Amino acid sequence: MLPSPIRETADIIKKLPGIGPRQALRCAFYILRNPAIRQDLKLVLDKIESVKNCSICFRYIHLSPNAADSTCSICRDIERDKNSLCVVEEDVDLEQLEKAGAFGGQYFVLGGRLSLNQDPRALRINELKQRALKDKDLKEIIMAMSPTAEGNAAFLWLKQEILSASDNTAQIKITRLGIGMPSGGEIEYADEETLRGALENRN
Amino acid sequence: MLPSPIRETADIIKKLPGIGPRQALRCAFYILRNPAIRQDLKLVLDKIESVKNCSICFRYIHLSPNAADSTCSICRDIERDKNSLCVVEEDVDLEQLEKAGAFGGQYFVLGGRLSLNQDPRALRINELKQRALKDKDLKEIIMAMSPTAEGNAAFLWLKQEILSASDNTAQIKITRLGIGMPSGGEIEYADEETLRGALENRN
Repeated sequence: MLPSPIRETADIIKKLPGIGPRQALRCAFYILRNPAIRQDLKLVLDKIESVKNCSICFRYIHLSPNAADSTCSICRDIERDKNSLCVVEEDVDLEQLEKAGAFGGQYFVLGGRLSLNQDPRALRINELKQRALKDKDLKEIIMAMSPTAEGNAAFLWLKQEILSASDNTAQIKITRLGIGMPSGGEIEYADEETLRGALENRN
Repeated sequence: MLPSPIRETADIIKKLPGIGPRQALRCAFYILRNPAIRQDLKLVLDKIESVKNCSICFRYIHLSPNAADSTCSICRDIERDKNSLCVVEEDVDLEQLEKAGAFGGQYFVLGGRLSLNQDPRALRINELKQRALKDKDLKEIIMAMSPTAEGNAAFLWLKQEILSASDNTAQIKITRLGIGMPSGGEIEYADEETLRGALENRN
């Protein structure tokens, strides 16, 4: 029998997404043989405790324990457009959009993918409705779901949810990311849906 | 930018064997969202500090901090055959052999795979030679390398190393695992090398 700390380490690593039992055991041995990685892991596990959600957009931010303000730099930035709100599923999507530098408005992080496998109560649907109701500056909500069958369904459902929240929300324009040719993509390899979208959105 | 504790967690996880940058980030978010897994990880990282090598066979054992004895249960077991020593590359190989219950002798863990990519000084070659020289009970050393091209080369090289260690070692029989049909394997799907080995080792 392998020593219990090795087996226990492997059992924990096995819980991480996409890691099988054999790889978990290899990782446990790697951690056992590397005191430096154990030290780094311990330090970062403590640091991660101070990661909280921004109280406005819910993205993850690093808060010092006695911070008075719990909002993120984007929500605090008075230069950014208050009229448009971009709804993303996860923090990584927000990162990608910010990296592209093409959006200068506000964000809202749903906290997961809206799908048949996901309990919608785990997502911030009510918080999003509240935001749409209370934020008087809002003129447009851009739903930045992926243009997959699942993302399309999520868009339509969320749009309905927001519109039905109150009469106030009816004047907010609810849009989604445009479908078109990916930059650098070749027509020869584009699928039919993408080509159809690109033709509709021609300019 | 993602909060630094998330990025740092992903950077550490990326160092584990077989984990790419995207999966590392997914794991970091998983750890962020699961306080229980952080707690479990911290506990096990402390426990893993008490995993040491058996002073005789070098397999990993769980030692309490004030343990007087640093040998493993197999090395201490007076019932086991003192005449035969099975050399394995890694602890997991020893586990498999013990699970099979087919070997009742002693073990020696090299601590890695002897290959062209591996510095042999990182392995316990000298410790193995010392054991062969000093252990007067030894009659046979079984090299349990995998029967791959690499394992075959490692076997021949190690055998030579031990035999050249001293005249004392010349009377030790150095063998390796037999090549044959895997139990339950079908002849139709067996490769030529396996079939050749199975014919040679017919009984």
